[in-house]
Amino acid sequence: MSGEASAGAGPGAPEPWGETRVVGKPLPRIDAWERVTGAAVFTRDLTLPDMLHAAVLRCPHAHARVRRVDLAVAARRPGVRAVLGPDGPGAAIPWYPDREGKPTSRLLDPDCRYQGEEVAAVAAETLAQAQEALAAVAVEYEVLPAVTDMERALDAGAPAVHARGNRQGERFGYSRGDLEQGLAQADAVVELTTRSACSVHTPMEVHCSVAHWEGHQLTVWDSTQGVFAVRAELAAALGLPLSSVRVVSHFVGGGFGGKLQLSKHTVLAALLARAAGRPVKLALSREETLRCVGNRPPNRLTVRAGARRDGTLTALGLEALGTGGAYPASATSGLLVGDLYRCANVRTAHDNVHVNAGPGRAFRAPGVPPAAFALEQAMDALAEKLGLDPLELRLANLPTGSQTRGLPFTSTGLERCLREGARAFGWREARARARDAGPLRRGVGLAAGMWGYEGDPRATALVTLLADGSATLNTGAVDIGTGTRTVLAQVVAEELGVPLERIAVENADTGTTQFSPPSGGSQTVLVNAPAVRAAALEVRRKLLGIAAGELHAAPGSLRLEGGAVVTAAGRRVLLKDLAGLAERVSLVGVGERAPHPPGKLALPFAAHFAEVEVDVRTGQVRLLRLLAVQDSGRVMNALTFENQVHGGVVMGLGFGLTEERVLDHATGALLSRGWHDYQLPTALDAPASIDWLPVDPHDRECNSVGAKGLGEPAHIPTAAAVANAIHHATGVRPLEAPMTPPRLVALLARARS
Amino acid sequence: MSGEASAGAGPGAPEPWGETRVVGKPLPRIDAWERVTGAAVFTRDLTLPDMLHAAVLRCPHAHARVRRVDLAVAARRPGVRAVLGPDGPGAAIPWYPDREGKPTSRLLDPDCRYQGEEVAAVAAETLAQAQEALAAVAVEYEVLPAVTDMERALDAGAPAVHARGNRQGERFGYSRGDLEQGLAQADAVVELTTRSACSVHTPMEVHCSVAHWEGHQLTVWDSTQGVFAVRAELAAALGLPLSSVRVVSHFVGGGFGGKLQLSKHTVLAALLARAAGRPVKLALSREETLRCVGNRPPNRLTVRAGARRDGTLTALGLEALGTGGAYPASATSGLLVGDLYRCANVRTAHDNVHVNAGPGRAFRAPGVPPAAFALEQAMDALAEKLGLDPLELRLANLPTGSQTRGLPFTSTGLERCLREGARAFGWREARARARDAGPLRRGVGLAAGMWGYEGDPRATALVTLLADGSATLNTGAVDIGTGTRTVLAQVVAEELGVPLERIAVENADTGTTQFSPPSGGSQTVLVNAPAVRAAALEVRRKLLGIAAGELHAAPGSLRLEGGAVVTAAGRRVLLKDLAGLAERVSLVGVGERAPHPPGKLALPFAAHFAEVEVDVRTGQVRLLRLLAVQDSGRVMNALTFENQVHGGVVMGLGFGLTEERVLDHATGALLSRGWHDYQLPTALDAPASIDWLPVDPHDRECNSVGAKGLGEPAHIPTAAAVANAIHHATGVRPLEAPMTPPRLVALLARARS
Repeated sequence: MSGEASAGAGPGAPEPWGETRVVGKPLPRIDAWERVTGAAVFTRDLTLPDMLHAAVLRCPHAHARVRRVDLAVAARRPGVRAVLGPDGPGAAIPWYPDREGKPTSRLLDPDCRYQGEEVAAVAAETLAQAQEALAAVAVEYEVLPAVTDMERALDAGAPAVHARGNRQGERFGYSRGDLEQGLAQADAVVELTTRSACSVHTPMEVHCSVAHWEGHQLTVWDSTQGVFAVRAELAAALGLPLSSVRVVSHFVGGGFGGKLQLSKHTVLAALLARAAGRPVKLALSREETLRCVGNRPPNRLTVRAGARRDGTLTALGLEALGTGGAYPASATSGLLVGDLYRCANVRTAHDNVHVNAGPGRAFRAPGVPPAAFALEQAMDALAEKLGLDPLELRLANLPTGSQTRGLPFTSTGLERCLREGARAFGWREARARARDAGPLRRGVGLAAGMWGYEGDPRATALVTLLADGSATLNTGAVDIGTGTRTVLAQVVAEELGVPLERIAVENADTGTTQFSPPSGGSQTVLVNAPAVRAAALEVRRKLLGIAAGELHAAPGSLRLEGGAVVTAAGRRVLLKDLAGLAERVSLVGVGERAPHPPGKLALPFAAHFAEVEVDVRTGQVRLLRLLAVQDSGRVMNALTFENQVHGGVVMGLGFGLTEERVLDHATGALLSRGWHDYQLPTALDAPASIDWLPVDPHDRECNSVGAKGLGEPAHIPTAAAVANAIHHATGVRPLEAPMTPPRLVALLARARS
Repeated sequence: MSGEASAGAGPGAPEPWGETRVVGKPLPRIDAWERVTGAAVFTRDLTLPDMLHAAVLRCPHAHARVRRVDLAVAARRPGVRAVLGPDGPGAAIPWYPDREGKPTSRLLDPDCRYQGEEVAAVAAETLAQAQEALAAVAVEYEVLPAVTDMERALDAGAPAVHARGNRQGERFGYSRGDLEQGLAQADAVVELTTRSACSVHTPMEVHCSVAHWEGHQLTVWDSTQGVFAVRAELAAALGLPLSSVRVVSHFVGGGFGGKLQLSKHTVLAALLARAAGRPVKLALSREETLRCVGNRPPNRLTVRAGARRDGTLTALGLEALGTGGAYPASATSGLLVGDLYRCANVRTAHDNVHVNAGPGRAFRAPGVPPAAFALEQAMDALAEKLGLDPLELRLANLPTGSQTRGLPFTSTGLERCLREGARAFGWREARARARDAGPLRRGVGLAAGMWGYEGDPRATALVTLLADGSATLNTGAVDIGTGTRTVLAQVVAEELGVPLERIAVENADTGTTQFSPPSGGSQTVLVNAPAVRAAALEVRRKLLGIAAGELHAAPGSLRLEGGAVVTAAGRRVLLKDLAGLAERVSLVGVGERAPHPPGKLALPFAAHFAEVEVDVRTGQVRLLRLLAVQDSGRVMNALTFENQVHGGVVMGLGFGLTEERVLDHATGALLSRGWHDYQLPTALDAPASIDWLPVDPHDRECNSVGAKGLGEPAHIPTAAAVANAIHHATGVRPLEAPMTPPRLVALLARARS
């Protein structure tokens, strides 16, 4: 496979693109038709012949021990074809591994540690029959005391979520220099503690799996971000070879990190399907997704920051308290404190605890938006204390490499994000504007951010040029709604000169497509596009070899465009008219991603500028405009780029202003059980204007396409920028997210008193 | 792609296998479970959400002109969602090209030239509604005179099937030496004329297509032998790029040549689906398949053969009359006369005519079994005339190369087929046994055969080794029921030492798999297996490279077996424990078939030995035993090999004894409209014993796996061997196939009189 060595930006890597013809253009999705007509088959839409529908019985208590489950009556209810309880086959599959990989629970565990934990499952001819049968399952619970407030989880006498106690592992952290000494050297020091609520992913498409056995061969259609990741986990859970498990995910309606991993309902669907000898669909309800398949855990973060008079940071400290809920999950992040700014003395400390609440999962830049909410407000406060413009303070502390990992960046666009953003936003003018004394106060704020993941090292892609000059692309990458299919097809179009509408993409099927890591962590484009480019270049080389022979030209003198080969003299020969192509039937190219040469890091940066209007009577915040300045390297498609920025910003607005999972601390019951109570920002909440400004530092080292990832950095600084704007407008610092009207009203009242 | 140059048996080709561990073994099908449980989804079984069902209105006359079609009433019938008549979109798509490629008809042609030709089509919510709506289509026909007997098609005054007349092109043929001179040199000359009836493919799974549009992207599930062939034809018919058409055919219940090409019903399904905006299934009825989707055309063959006293052939002549039915199709074959025996003076002449009957299609060795029926009876008659054993006459004229193409064979197993077969069958003893004088007469006969196609030059395959040591194989080859999936997986297992049950096969989907030509013409294994082997060897090379590094051994000293790497010292390391494999996630190998070096032909041979019992009172023939001796090179799987031989022999028995499409010559109406009238041999007709004896001439030149193809040669000689056995038993020579009781009774009566 000649693509192997040439996919990265290392030695032997292909030339970076100069002027591009297809890449970068604002091109609509290649699957727009399916999406807007509803023809696209999401997992939830899938119907297989003879398919059964399954439902899950969930523990109604925040903490309970299941003493007995009697499935006999349920099994005899009309339409029921399979039942599964804690004693059934597969129920003991280990689940929720801790940091050492040791399971802390099982698929159907008699110890239920949050309200909604899985107790039993039923498959029936219809969903109504399955749900009806659940009501006939007799369960005897021993109800136990619960703790749901993470700040009380370590109190003496707090109920023990796990026998080993409520600490999720030991305290961990990072340190360089000497924090206390750095604070002592500072001319100004601030300390503040932020709290952010638990938020839930709420993708448009709820989680769903359809399982279908053919002999020992299992096919699962799953609403997932990573078909290969789910295959690996599912094969391990069921003790099957990887080749016996096929996971398919052609259309996915959002993930945000909540669909990166194998879920219990997927295994339950597979077990029920095996028991019934029929395909089984298990679709979660919206309420179930709010309970059981992950969330962004709550955080309590204390930041201490010190700087010299000129703005030079001398100390950054973070004390983080987080929780993965009832089970191990990473909850807090030290990334920004450690690496966003140049600082000699840094210390972070992380404590994670267990509570009787639904388990956490990766959620769009896990831990980082809450950290930005804390750090960037601390920077704002520090600037205020030093009498500096918040922009100047940041510009005084720009990083050139990762201080935690001791590696330089291939490129750092943060300075350009800040400077060009400030110019485009009119930062100085807006900042200097006098505060309105009336009830509607305007203010502007900014926040910066970065993302710390360069992507998994491996991805493979396959490009095939067909005899009529059309092409197919085979990639394992899931398109979770971000336009992955389109962007990757653009790479093929760019290299082969084949019109986009003549490129078909097959993706996200472990049975038929090439390996790709999950679409998450802002890695989708930067990991897959270089593999696709390598594959396309292999096809291009073969094609030019054929064309050169037929046209009596040097391969290097030929161009590919509009489905034709063009000679230096301007002669055009359509690909379909190349006899050598017809004789070869198809030209196949395999491309692999090779990570950039070691010794550097390729990471994206961002700065968001927000203008808000706060009604100091009601605490209502309106985001008037937001400018997202993103250093994500190359813009692969101006439309999908804009889409990502809009999505990231609006989700940041939800984190900052509206979204909150509410648990009743007395009973552990989930109170925010639907979109009525769990408030996503709607079109009315979104600002009238979300502008975006790409900063492309022409990073030729990061990989062969020059893209650094966008999904997380488009989301990270938003809430912090809004918080700083609120402070600018009102003088109060909103340290609790979401910054709801009641919270702001209370803050304003306290400030007035 | 390093596999390119190494797949064939040319320079740089891999070593031929020595002792094999997996290849050749009698292993059950890897998809046996799906097949025996009914879980396998054949196209006919496919149900898509919102799928409509279509039915076709067919001309009730053998020859008619459609004056007017009124679809208005039908379109308003309950459940009807789309109608299509001769004026509808797509109806003018050209169809049935002649030898020059010029169409002789169109998709829905107002000129109907056989009973059953397509006039209109309807898609409705249910099949019953579609059929009901067809009855409401008002058609005005001008009924024209018809000719259905090919021997009358060129008579003066015969109705003209086409305006240009009833000749399907000019007479063509082949000649070497001087036939008349050769006949003059002969010590004995025979001339005989055989006739064989039209037979129909009758695969278990009737033809069916399901068409589904997503925007401009068309997916068709089709019961076909070649997904890539159908894609090419369908894309051309609809004016779409190849990349916009996906053809899938995961399970196919037989083809026999009748499913090699695009059928009208497939295009009709696609057009109706586009019109309705819904998926459409169009499944033919058994009667429709007997009418419209091909047949083995009838033949009239006159053979003249001359030989010297010692058996040396001096002359072979063939005059062939055939018909493709109403449209161009090749009908007769000169292969055997030109190449099966060494002979200096050969002449063949072929006349093909049009009649008002369903169109012919390739049918298991097109034209060759009828030619064997003629030639091998002529050889038998010649031996009788010369007083030679029929075996001796054949052994005296063994070929060493193709005389028509002037090329040597890579191997000729015909001599071994004849000698080893005669020994195993007990030929001399059985032949010498005195004829019984009673009503039940026993006799033995033999016939030889060969097949002339080496396979299409190209096929690509992809093998992927996964991190846990399981593997996947991706191939475009359709498994039409012969075990292709199993045999190709064995090749992977052989090279990688991965157990067969840990290899998953994805095949026959133009959207996801690599190119393969249609599964037909005995090419499936010999074209695809070398590509698969090349891909597996590429993976093997990568794997051994990784293992050698980890185990500090030379790659050449390592063996792969049982999912492990074994060192020269006997140390076993499971593949899943290789860190380098886990790090690479998967190892991909692409393999291409390269044809063997030019200048030689790789063709299979066969000899069948039959013993029959003829009831001279009733004309009933019982085949008591048959020995099929096959030089197909390497036996890839002893079970699938036996299956193929059984299928070929029983189909030969149908051709020889029972199967006959019957047309009413007065009206052109099909009389054999189902399995009641069209008599397939059943289990009761099959001999108690079908033995098979592979002759492997250790052909190391033909390709990298050593297999030469089996499907056709297992079928070609059967009917001829049975005919010769009937002659041996009764003294009459049955020149008309099928040799039905009435025909034999008449022959016996004539012989007695």
